[in-house]
Amino acid sequence: MFDVSAAPRRLESYLSGRWSAGDGEGKPLADAATGETVAYIGAEGLDRGAALQWGREVGGPALRRLTIHERALMLKEIGLKLMERKEDFYQENFRTGATRRDGFVDIDGGIGTLLTFASRARREWPNAHVLPEGPVEMLSKDGSFVARHILSPLEGVAIHINAFNFPVWGMLEKIAPALIAGVPCLVKPGSQTAFLTESVVRAILDMEILPDGALQLLCGSAGDLLDHVMPQDAVTFTGSAGTGRKLRTHPAIVENSVRFTMEADSLNAAILGPDAGPDSEEFALFVREVSNEMTAKAGQKCTAIRRVIVPAALEDAVIDALKERLGKTQPGLPDADGARMGALVSLGERDAVRAQVERLRAEAEIVFGDPGEVRVASGDPQKGAFLGPILLRCASPMEAVAVHEVEAFGPVATILPYEDVEGAIQLARKGRGSLVSSLFTNDADVARDVTLGMAPWHGRVLVGNRGSAKTSTGHGSPLAPLIHGGPGRAGGGEEMGGMRGVKHFMQRTAVQGTPEMIAAITGEWVSGAPSRADVHPFRKSLAELEIGDQVLTDAREVTQGDVEHFAEFTGDTFYAHMDSDAAKANPFFDDRVAHGYLIASFAAGLFVSPEPGPVLANYGVDNLRFMTPVYFGDTLRVRLTCKAINPRENAEHGEVRWDCLVTNQDGETVAEYDVLTMVAKTWPMPEEA
Amino acid sequence: MFDVSAAPRRLESYLSGRWSAGDGEGKPLADAATGETVAYIGAEGLDRGAALQWGREVGGPALRRLTIHERALMLKEIGLKLMERKEDFYQENFRTGATRRDGFVDIDGGIGTLLTFASRARREWPNAHVLPEGPVEMLSKDGSFVARHILSPLEGVAIHINAFNFPVWGMLEKIAPALIAGVPCLVKPGSQTAFLTESVVRAILDMEILPDGALQLLCGSAGDLLDHVMPQDAVTFTGSAGTGRKLRTHPAIVENSVRFTMEADSLNAAILGPDAGPDSEEFALFVREVSNEMTAKAGQKCTAIRRVIVPAALEDAVIDALKERLGKTQPGLPDADGARMGALVSLGERDAVRAQVERLRAEAEIVFGDPGEVRVASGDPQKGAFLGPILLRCASPMEAVAVHEVEAFGPVATILPYEDVEGAIQLARKGRGSLVSSLFTNDADVARDVTLGMAPWHGRVLVGNRGSAKTSTGHGSPLAPLIHGGPGRAGGGEEMGGMRGVKHFMQRTAVQGTPEMIAAITGEWVSGAPSRADVHPFRKSLAELEIGDQVLTDAREVTQGDVEHFAEFTGDTFYAHMDSDAAKANPFFDDRVAHGYLIASFAAGLFVSPEPGPVLANYGVDNLRFMTPVYFGDTLRVRLTCKAINPRENAEHGEVRWDCLVTNQDGETVAEYDVLTMVAKTWPMPEEA
Repeated sequence: MFDVSAAPRRLESYLSGRWSAGDGEGKPLADAATGETVAYIGAEGLDRGAALQWGREVGGPALRRLTIHERALMLKEIGLKLMERKEDFYQENFRTGATRRDGFVDIDGGIGTLLTFASRARREWPNAHVLPEGPVEMLSKDGSFVARHILSPLEGVAIHINAFNFPVWGMLEKIAPALIAGVPCLVKPGSQTAFLTESVVRAILDMEILPDGALQLLCGSAGDLLDHVMPQDAVTFTGSAGTGRKLRTHPAIVENSVRFTMEADSLNAAILGPDAGPDSEEFALFVREVSNEMTAKAGQKCTAIRRVIVPAALEDAVIDALKERLGKTQPGLPDADGARMGALVSLGERDAVRAQVERLRAEAEIVFGDPGEVRVASGDPQKGAFLGPILLRCASPMEAVAVHEVEAFGPVATILPYEDVEGAIQLARKGRGSLVSSLFTNDADVARDVTLGMAPWHGRVLVGNRGSAKTSTGHGSPLAPLIHGGPGRAGGGEEMGGMRGVKHFMQRTAVQGTPEMIAAITGEWVSGAPSRADVHPFRKSLAELEIGDQVLTDAREVTQGDVEHFAEFTGDTFYAHMDSDAAKANPFFDDRVAHGYLIASFAAGLFVSPEPGPVLANYGVDNLRFMTPVYFGDTLRVRLTCKAINPRENAEHGEVRWDCLVTNQDGETVAEYDVLTMVAKTWPMPEEA
Repeated sequence: MFDVSAAPRRLESYLSGRWSAGDGEGKPLADAATGETVAYIGAEGLDRGAALQWGREVGGPALRRLTIHERALMLKEIGLKLMERKEDFYQENFRTGATRRDGFVDIDGGIGTLLTFASRARREWPNAHVLPEGPVEMLSKDGSFVARHILSPLEGVAIHINAFNFPVWGMLEKIAPALIAGVPCLVKPGSQTAFLTESVVRAILDMEILPDGALQLLCGSAGDLLDHVMPQDAVTFTGSAGTGRKLRTHPAIVENSVRFTMEADSLNAAILGPDAGPDSEEFALFVREVSNEMTAKAGQKCTAIRRVIVPAALEDAVIDALKERLGKTQPGLPDADGARMGALVSLGERDAVRAQVERLRAEAEIVFGDPGEVRVASGDPQKGAFLGPILLRCASPMEAVAVHEVEAFGPVATILPYEDVEGAIQLARKGRGSLVSSLFTNDADVARDVTLGMAPWHGRVLVGNRGSAKTSTGHGSPLAPLIHGGPGRAGGGEEMGGMRGVKHFMQRTAVQGTPEMIAAITGEWVSGAPSRADVHPFRKSLAELEIGDQVLTDAREVTQGDVEHFAEFTGDTFYAHMDSDAAKANPFFDDRVAHGYLIASFAAGLFVSPEPGPVLANYGVDNLRFMTPVYFGDTLRVRLTCKAINPRENAEHGEVRWDCLVTNQDGETVAEYDVLTMVAKTWPMPEEA
């Protein structure tokens, strides 16, 4: 599809339902490695305010009509189809200066992130429009006034202002949680690599899976975009701290209390533990990691290692090992066979990196590399933005300022020696907040002390050692299940982290009222809400079952014989069941008590409706608490109530959560738990019909 | 203790470990109801930057040395002692213009909030320094690389800039979560009522329960306070949107990505449902609520009802009923017997309210009250800031602007008629984000539609009806278990919400590594981390037990006879256990399977060590999942591992969470769950020793 040898194309934006380049010819974008013009970018004259309004009025309502699972399934389909077409994206990836390996993180990593969100949403969240969160809060002693929190999609647009370095991942990791939340997106990619983002967005929109207005793209300057934000919009920004500060204080963002999330480049550290001598596996892992982080994406990663914190005694050994490794890595054409390191994104960025290195040199000496001279494995260093790795060394890092502040956004890192573990922690903190730091040690005590010491200043900490040498995903890789973002200099933002990231695009609301009202609003039954006890609820398929369907069982006495028989049968002869004196000595019991598992087993015997029917299986139990001991002669009774119904989109069944309350003859709660079952959507099931 | 007839006192600040008034005589603060000078306030010349540094260097480390439970117990002790002294605070409360009932919300409400946090922290969080959060994330197929999130206290100071209207609650609801998180606080109260805050802080510090530096007080202008914030500080602000915007964009806050939480006054609504005719209980509840919210605190609450949204057909009836009720409520001296309504906080505030009413009158007519004329039950309306309730009516609320924007921060509300439920939702949303709105209806469908329709624009929604008439805590009351804050105009902040509010003062960090490293860092055992199987772990008290202590049991076969016997004994004759054909027709099973409860019961029989010992009781089970069906002849085996240990501060025992893994003869996981036990700290227990 993408003919990379074709004439440069004019990038278009997709706003308010149509593709348009806007006025003018646009600004040329150069191939990072060859200098050839790849595309022209510009969005002059396009109505950004109207696009936001279109997202709010068309995209939002369409997404909110779908359930969380329906939205997740759309993303799954999009992800699988993008995967089929990824080779096209790899071809364009080369033109950003990135090698195939660099592209893997961006392209496969981005699509994988989309698929992870699609899968976790269906596994972890209900197939609903609104998400109940946390327990029911009892606000009155008699249970007539209760509360629950709910999360509902923001009614605005999620505006994602991305950096140039991950044109695919940077977009997908942000739109995935927003779209699952039910919030339409407008993506503004970093201009320099926007051609790749445009290709992916075009591919997604061509699939016609997303509803109109769910995804818009602005290729070109943000212009007056933020002037039009409204209170339910959200803005995420990835890029330089300076730009981020400007956006964060934009009058319309401040005026409307618009959620603003920022991921800024930070001075991430890698620490070598004092135990990791030159012959240790951790030493080798550390050197490999530092070298990889310096050269992958030519060092243009917000998570890249900038500060290499090593025991003073090991400093020379580390420098020697890094020199040897880096000496083998020459930049070159990213699509050349066996390319190990590509180009920076532009000649302008190379100039900037050279200037930053000059600032670092006020406090540190270069021990490897030369910012002025570029040796390439292939390509033309005059036309392509090539730059070899540069390693510096700062002799007095505790007193230094620039090495903790100046980020050379390229293949540049500085060695900082430390005297003791506390010093290493202090150095890490001097970054004033980072996205990630890593620690290489095989000593669990060092791992604990250093990690806890620097945790408040970091969004992520990776501990590397021999045990995960083959499986570690590495210092630089944000992962969908883990949060990405850091405090202070890193911008104070938080993204992803599994379903946490979806909540960033939802409003949390505490809802108070009677149990009846709270059940009606949340869609989950609450103790005290209306119930029905017509036919046994196990006889109802999902087509008939409703929350509040209930069975109140007969009573059953628990005898000494039962307890002794159960003990003998199961082998559970724990003293509290068997030995009256020992039970009495126990602070929780007045005498021998029935087994908790006996109570749950008898309860099941009381509440099941045994004949074949729509209830297919008991797949688990949640939050089981034994509240009151059961003594011999006590009588149990169970109230089982349908609490939550979660039909699966692509199956003939769904999950039903039952509230199970076991009481004794005095009405005291003996045990309380959720019983989890699979229930057929219809009965008999279609396979048998 | 507080001699209210004494000469006006000079308020002092408590900064850097000493009480000081600073330079100058200070600005006089007038008794809201009498105009007499109560105190002088000012903090000129006090070093705010040094105070923050003292908090960071002295208060923070001291708090972080304590565990979460130890911090919570300090708050409990403080709360109980404040409760004993609350009458002193009530005396000063009158001088803010507030009646005794108004003071209840502030004083008893504030202390109650402190106690709620103290109690929930010990019930819901471990007795630890760092909080593991969420599940262990598997990052490699072989389990050698995993991750977990942890929350650790910020290493800065929590700066709380409070409003004048809740001098006690406003402080306590903010310091409670911060102190439990382990973060020292600096409180800057609203000047007008700072004398009451100062009294409470003085009482707290005199108790000498908190470590040095944990709590500081700034009575007077914030001055250059915010110039000194650093990346680990956090700022909370309650007050006007205008001031909030200024603080939010303060250069040092922006530069350091300092967490900034804002609660601004909002145009909260109360909606009368279309079903709630004049004779309904809901109508009466609605009128009472609106009237109370107008007059409580003389309407000076950020949660007060400003917009009274009623069915057009019921508009006249509502106005008549409100007129009657409000007519009985005259402002007067707050300490007079039977005082129903006190004074505004100051004459200046009264002027402001009058000006705001004038702005509202451009779109709405006054139907009750007169801003120009004040009739008092007692007191002198020239000297005291008295103002009677003022009810307005806006005929065309859909087109109106001011009624949705101008907040008269006093006993003022405006009636807005609506045509249908969708219109009522639209009107509520026109507030562009509110802290709370309420809805009075007895129709669950209306409750669901209206609540979900306005939820994204609200931090809290209260549904009132006859079922909670006696127990509802009311529209205006934030509660510790529920979030407080709202989007858009309300500031976009979130406070409290139970333990959610504590996390606002902690940094979340994703930690990656081998299970061994993750266990060492989080203090909780993770599958794959080292384990020990010396003596049976049920024989170890908390003094000896460590995470990773494990028992691997013998195997036990599950026979057809076992299943049939268990079915007969418990009564659980569910078809999947009893009927081969029916089981085979089930999509999850190949044949008859063992009961889940049988598996758990046999597992307990395998893992218990029955003789009397330090394990006192099994109090529950969490996250039980049956993963693989157990067929006749399968053989089970259990691996039980100590996962988390939670010693109680004030008891002779603690909670131990065990990882229970049940596998079959092929090594497949049959069931996985957490077993929850109470274990003695020492054995034999001291009562018996």
